[in-house]
Amino acid sequence: MAKPPKSAISPTREEDYPEWYQQVIKAADLAEVSPVRGCMVIKPWGWAIWENMQRVLDGMFKATGHENAYFPLFIPLGFLEKEAQHVEGFAKECAVVTHHRLESDGEGGLRPAPSAKLEEPLIIRPTSETIIGSLYAKWVQSYRDLPILINQWANVVRWELRTRMFLRTTEFLWQEGHTAHATREEAIDETLKILDIYADFAESYMAMPVIKGEKTAEERFPGAVSTYAIEAMMQDRKALQAGTSHFLGQNFARAQEIKFQDETGTEQLAWTTSWGVSTRLVGGLIMTHADDDGLVLPPRLAPKHVVIMPIYRDADERRTVMEFVGKLEHGLGLAKYDGSTVRYFVDDRDLRGGEKAWQHIKKGVPIRVEVGPRDVAAGTVFVGRRDKGPKEKSPVPLEAFTARVGEMLEEIQSNLFLRARALRDANTREITSLDAFRAFFTPEREESPEIHGGFAVCPFVECEETLAAIRDLKVTIRCVPVDQQPSEGRCVFTGQKTDKTAVFAKAY
Amino acid sequence: MAKPPKSAISPTREEDYPEWYQQVIKAADLAEVSPVRGCMVIKPWGWAIWENMQRVLDGMFKATGHENAYFPLFIPLGFLEKEAQHVEGFAKECAVVTHHRLESDGEGGLRPAPSAKLEEPLIIRPTSETIIGSLYAKWVQSYRDLPILINQWANVVRWELRTRMFLRTTEFLWQEGHTAHATREEAIDETLKILDIYADFAESYMAMPVIKGEKTAEERFPGAVSTYAIEAMMQDRKALQAGTSHFLGQNFARAQEIKFQDETGTEQLAWTTSWGVSTRLVGGLIMTHADDDGLVLPPRLAPKHVVIMPIYRDADERRTVMEFVGKLEHGLGLAKYDGSTVRYFVDDRDLRGGEKAWQHIKKGVPIRVEVGPRDVAAGTVFVGRRDKGPKEKSPVPLEAFTARVGEMLEEIQSNLFLRARALRDANTREITSLDAFRAFFTPEREESPEIHGGFAVCPFVECEETLAAIRDLKVTIRCVPVDQQPSEGRCVFTGQKTDKTAVFAKAY
Repeated sequence: MAKPPKSAISPTREEDYPEWYQQVIKAADLAEVSPVRGCMVIKPWGWAIWENMQRVLDGMFKATGHENAYFPLFIPLGFLEKEAQHVEGFAKECAVVTHHRLESDGEGGLRPAPSAKLEEPLIIRPTSETIIGSLYAKWVQSYRDLPILINQWANVVRWELRTRMFLRTTEFLWQEGHTAHATREEAIDETLKILDIYADFAESYMAMPVIKGEKTAEERFPGAVSTYAIEAMMQDRKALQAGTSHFLGQNFARAQEIKFQDETGTEQLAWTTSWGVSTRLVGGLIMTHADDDGLVLPPRLAPKHVVIMPIYRDADERRTVMEFVGKLEHGLGLAKYDGSTVRYFVDDRDLRGGEKAWQHIKKGVPIRVEVGPRDVAAGTVFVGRRDKGPKEKSPVPLEAFTARVGEMLEEIQSNLFLRARALRDANTREITSLDAFRAFFTPEREESPEIHGGFAVCPFVECEETLAAIRDLKVTIRCVPVDQQPSEGRCVFTGQKTDKTAVFAKAY
Repeated sequence: MAKPPKSAISPTREEDYPEWYQQVIKAADLAEVSPVRGCMVIKPWGWAIWENMQRVLDGMFKATGHENAYFPLFIPLGFLEKEAQHVEGFAKECAVVTHHRLESDGEGGLRPAPSAKLEEPLIIRPTSETIIGSLYAKWVQSYRDLPILINQWANVVRWELRTRMFLRTTEFLWQEGHTAHATREEAIDETLKILDIYADFAESYMAMPVIKGEKTAEERFPGAVSTYAIEAMMQDRKALQAGTSHFLGQNFARAQEIKFQDETGTEQLAWTTSWGVSTRLVGGLIMTHADDDGLVLPPRLAPKHVVIMPIYRDADERRTVMEFVGKLEHGLGLAKYDGSTVRYFVDDRDLRGGEKAWQHIKKGVPIRVEVGPRDVAAGTVFVGRRDKGPKEKSPVPLEAFTARVGEMLEEIQSNLFLRARALRDANTREITSLDAFRAFFTPEREESPEIHGGFAVCPFVECEETLAAIRDLKVTIRCVPVDQQPSEGRCVFTGQKTDKTAVFAKAY
């Protein structure tokens, strides 16, 4: 009896979603765990995706008047103590530097030198509000010094006990924007402007649909007045918080004395914001698009758009095929996509054709092109698209392919977005009763315990009763969407009248 | 009696070179000391220079087949212990993480939680040979897995007691390349290829002439078989080591068991290299080109090429001037330099014209353009170049300026290089006697104690006697130039016959 065709990734999403995720990362050679607990090594293919993300986001920040700078990795312990909620939020996960020298331990090993113990321990930044704020306090004297619109690309450390590659690691890479403004309105505008940039980036580049919303008090950034986030649905129906933008009010300005003289000469506290996205986005990209054959890359962020695989049996065939490949390369060299050149490469390694093609499928390369002697004879190339099945390949005349490749990449980009949005829409429910809510978050099928409900959109009142009702289901309030129309309803959990709805889901 | 015109930076280079350096950094708003001992804050103007350096170098590495990746910030203590010389070199300057949580100290403050003490302390990478090598050992099985050509952009920490902005800070940013090869020859070729890239970058982009050479044993990277460096002369005649490329032989491969099966099936140790340049380059750029009026930027690395300063007294004049500025912007928008668009900006802040112009002089903007009502009437712009005196400005017809701006920037780039090379050549001597050597490194003038000799090129034998002779003069052997023609001579310090010469200098 013939088995059904096996997928390249085992287990599949349905079988074991968390393990599938790890296997996709391995098969695409994106990253691996490191010898240091909780830290990961980002390998070249994974790094190239992050590099593309950085390039695009950096351009978006600069286009809106932000500049980059760099602040120290270390934060003196005393700085953290200044903002009470901030300490509360981060003290439990801080890596602490206590010594600045090693010495022989007398047994052939090394130990921290007791004579080099720091008077005040340093923590490694888990986020930089405190150290950056201390500098803004020096830089800001007058309203003329505002706004300050600075971003930094940096590594941060938050000690995590349970880690998962890209999604939650002890060290991670991110950008953190820190701005200071003369008025509350300006700071709120900045917070929301960045939220829009994050949403635009997620949807237009990652092809990952997101909901923009405000976090409830419980999920707020420690020390913030309000936290906004973009939330995306992964293929296991869980939510991923993919970027946050915080309106910090005057909380950090007060703790750090960021003061300025306004136009009338009166001393005022500044209004600050902070915002960030991290390498977690790579995890979100994987979980949004990868399938049971491996990674699927949205073309706008793919390190390579097209892989060309020459196929031949001997030197004669090789000569003919490679000459044709030269023409193909010439054509691709002139092709444009997303305002730039098409990123193609030739994989001429001595490897079985099938194995080679599968490697690129698993790595998510958007377009695979095979060129064999018969294609040369016919003047065609054999084209496979990663948004279609692995066997769905077709011959295309060389000139037609190079003329259409940009358009084809656009189609793939757009298909991925539409597919992801369809999945999200199919798994989003407006729910108005507690029973329906409970049923929604109870796994439908025993064999797929890791596929979870979806997004429940419910009228709600933010209170302990609501939180208690969802806690035992391991569901959290993802956000109160910013674009919602107020409409009268009753809180699913307390029965109280309310005009607010929130998105509820299990989450990463 | 009229005083001589004062320079914008005080003290001048002649008066107090180290203090002049600090003042240039301050006046150009490049960076400042941070509240964390030994760490600096890189401000937007300084960061933009580093960003340009990164972009160019990254392109050069990629063009030669290197890929980027990212490895953890932390290194387990045990890893460092594996390579004996490496430990020796770095143990004394390691920041050590011993705890992963803070807790209340019962007195309103925080302390590292004793219950969260790490079993094995982690050090913050001072360089990543050991952690990266441990991964290469996993990645390399067969000769087919080689070469590995990886670079990372990262922060590193070396605890420094005496720091100087950009030149020597506890945390600094750099790139570190780490490659593994099947043969000794290939690894040596890689080491020298990178040395060439560094030299090309320094000369073609930084406009900083360098000598490529090999370091003597004393100055070698801990654990390397040979270390190559580029050495540049700063304006105080001291040498700056601006980039290093290390041939590590099989030392690290042996310590970390990076082994592979060769084509015959025999197990072999890999041959590795490592190489890096850091934010120190920004310090080198400042000390090569800045003058007594502030920073001077080589156009290829300048964040902005052209600043446009409109000058007007009232709304009427403003309208006329800004309309003309619009035409100027249009022309500049079409102009090309260094394969890209010209980076210009309009500074329309409400500030006295003189003050504004001086700010941009101090920041090193290559071309300043003033536009007032009289210029509009004449159809000209008033152009000042940073490679000429601050008062040396001349009217240029608008069209002629936008047509010539790329060429003008090239001239500035080239002038800066020629000027720096002329200074170096004027202060380089072939010296063959110890008396002449001593005289060369004795300050000529009491009033400029920080202007030091220069480069002495001497026949030498590498031995303790030589080192002892130069130590009391605070002179070091910078390198044995790779391009030298062997010629018979006598060691200046020992009188022995030798065919090797080295460059001697005081150094940063």
